[in-house]
Amino acid sequence: MTSAPSTAAGGAPTAAGARRLEVDLGARSYPILIGCGLISSPDCYAPYVRGRQVLVVSNDTVAPLYLDAVERALASLDIHKVILPDGERYKDLATLNRIFDALLAERLGRDVTVIALGGGVVGDMAGFAAACYQRGVDFIQVPTTLLAQVDSSVGGKTGVNHALGKNMIGAFHQPRAVVADTDTLSTLPDRELAAGLAEVVKYGLIRDPDFVDWLEASRERLLARDADALAEAVERSCRNKAEVVAADEREAGQRALLNLGHTFGHAIEAGLGYGEWLHGEAVAAGMVMAAELSARLGWLAADDVGRIRRLLAGFGLPVDPPPDLTAERWLALMAVDKKVQGGRLRLVLLRAIGGAVVTADFDPAALRALLEQTAAASGRATA
Amino acid sequence: MTSAPSTAAGGAPTAAGARRLEVDLGARSYPILIGCGLISSPDCYAPYVRGRQVLVVSNDTVAPLYLDAVERALASLDIHKVILPDGERYKDLATLNRIFDALLAERLGRDVTVIALGGGVVGDMAGFAAACYQRGVDFIQVPTTLLAQVDSSVGGKTGVNHALGKNMIGAFHQPRAVVADTDTLSTLPDRELAAGLAEVVKYGLIRDPDFVDWLEASRERLLARDADALAEAVERSCRNKAEVVAADEREAGQRALLNLGHTFGHAIEAGLGYGEWLHGEAVAAGMVMAAELSARLGWLAADDVGRIRRLLAGFGLPVDPPPDLTAERWLALMAVDKKVQGGRLRLVLLRAIGGAVVTADFDPAALRALLEQTAAASGRATA
Repeated sequence: MTSAPSTAAGGAPTAAGARRLEVDLGARSYPILIGCGLISSPDCYAPYVRGRQVLVVSNDTVAPLYLDAVERALASLDIHKVILPDGERYKDLATLNRIFDALLAERLGRDVTVIALGGGVVGDMAGFAAACYQRGVDFIQVPTTLLAQVDSSVGGKTGVNHALGKNMIGAFHQPRAVVADTDTLSTLPDRELAAGLAEVVKYGLIRDPDFVDWLEASRERLLARDADALAEAVERSCRNKAEVVAADEREAGQRALLNLGHTFGHAIEAGLGYGEWLHGEAVAAGMVMAAELSARLGWLAADDVGRIRRLLAGFGLPVDPPPDLTAERWLALMAVDKKVQGGRLRLVLLRAIGGAVVTADFDPAALRALLEQTAAASGRATA
Repeated sequence: MTSAPSTAAGGAPTAAGARRLEVDLGARSYPILIGCGLISSPDCYAPYVRGRQVLVVSNDTVAPLYLDAVERALASLDIHKVILPDGERYKDLATLNRIFDALLAERLGRDVTVIALGGGVVGDMAGFAAACYQRGVDFIQVPTTLLAQVDSSVGGKTGVNHALGKNMIGAFHQPRAVVADTDTLSTLPDRELAAGLAEVVKYGLIRDPDFVDWLEASRERLLARDADALAEAVERSCRNKAEVVAADEREAGQRALLNLGHTFGHAIEAGLGYGEWLHGEAVAAGMVMAAELSARLGWLAADDVGRIRRLLAGFGLPVDPPPDLTAERWLALMAVDKKVQGGRLRLVLLRAIGGAVVTADFDPAALRALLEQTAAASGRATA
């Protein structure tokens, strides 16, 4: 499933040495470009910008690092920009409205292209603004975190949080292109690199057991930020995601597999307050919980749970949930999950490493027992 | 193009005597049901509700009149509701968030059906909330104003206003059904009935000259709220709209014809402050302006402009714009129109009564002359 670096086959030219994948969605198909130095290459944008106006959306952490390079690459266009405060706690309707303010104050038309320069929060908000502005304008994802490069920038999920639930307000809106410049990972804090690796591991666990082997063998190169290893991890993650999204764009079925660890993870994020744990950290602990529940149900060997724990811990990720939530609180937080159907919770669980299923067909007592053990481990009893 | 009242042909049963039209959009096709007493008929909802949960969204004017009847019709379901303040000035992100608050506080799942009970503002906001909640849930339109029955409830345009532009934030999201109960028009203030008739006239002017003849002949019956005349006007309007929407759902081309009078009208609404003039009133004056510009360009006979003026004035609608805007202000307000492409304004103009075109190919001097005449008529000079 790996492929050697290659120049673009068909379509627009890309920077020499860039890896290129296609997300196959008919009229909404688009490329993912992966490589070093892409954000400063005009060729990575020009084929995907229809009009003359672009609005670059970034945040106050990323803009000082990369906005100049992006502006130089877009110099032939009419460039506008809006810089948001950095952080998941700003991923809300009020901050979204600042993007609409900029679009309208500068009278940008329906042929504007929004360019999301930043991590997952910027991408989700800029993409949602593009989905809603004049009922839909183009956008390009330029993810600058590992998590955004391997996950949130691909597949068209956009949106904001609500005080009562994460990502509860949003739209499916596919970008025109994803430009993943692996050079931008050099400025990423260690903790955020690890959080991105949690989503990388996820692809292996749900559908690509060979990738799990490769990740175990590549731990040191990844943590040392070896350029080839990172590009390989990004490409292979995106290839897995692109295949799943192409088969089920609107999450009628198998796309939900991409939520391994996320129902538990969202409960952790909401329970502690968004931003306390990074999303990838919560997903890491959540994947271990999913594995442990799978083992309690007799679906997964205890050895496999241990292997998953070691892989994640080896990347510096948390493998136990925070000790602050009672079982009742867990269940309340999980009840708002988007996978709930007819009041019944569905979870992504593991039948094997590399074989995930979405199911409501599990013993609720096993879930409760897991949550009570989690709460008891912290010395707290349930209500 | 008229058709006799009929029961449903194929599909779900509807109340006896209901007229039924289909909006043909492939997998997203849906019926428009038109008739007396439909809102209290369970059969008008049940076939279009997938889960057990419904959220009725209404406002504090309509809810006291019709909410009980709707609740009785939905009695077999799990009913939730949210009542918004009435008025175009509440059509914003903050009020939209109250719908999300209700959906999340009551933990309604992805299989919830949102039911919009009210006029165009309620329909646009409830529809947009349904488009965004969990990235898209079902909704049913139950329009209670003539304007909503003939226009805003059909075709899937949803959204809210922004301080800098009307309907600038939104989504295309088709309802599962439209339930247009003509009995609800009995409680409509005269001014709102007339505002709805402006959109009815619009269908005739853009593509149905026989309908213009019929409207001229039916003026007294419509103003007297004759049930058959109103049902005929609603059905024929919806048939025209359904045909246009089926041919061009996302407004890549001819759907823009439905905006006859709207670029001028939106400028009137924004220039005076939303809510000062009703939308239909602004569209009526805007259609006359479009007709006058068409005549200045030599595209439309002066007699036809007079005929349009008389038809609209006969329904009690304004046929001259408000005297408060300078030509510069008009142009600034019109520049934010969604039909602007590459910085160039496009307008819907008339080649004949019943023959509209969308075009940027007009002499800007003619537009300016029209606007200056409009401003001069009020004794104000341009800057």
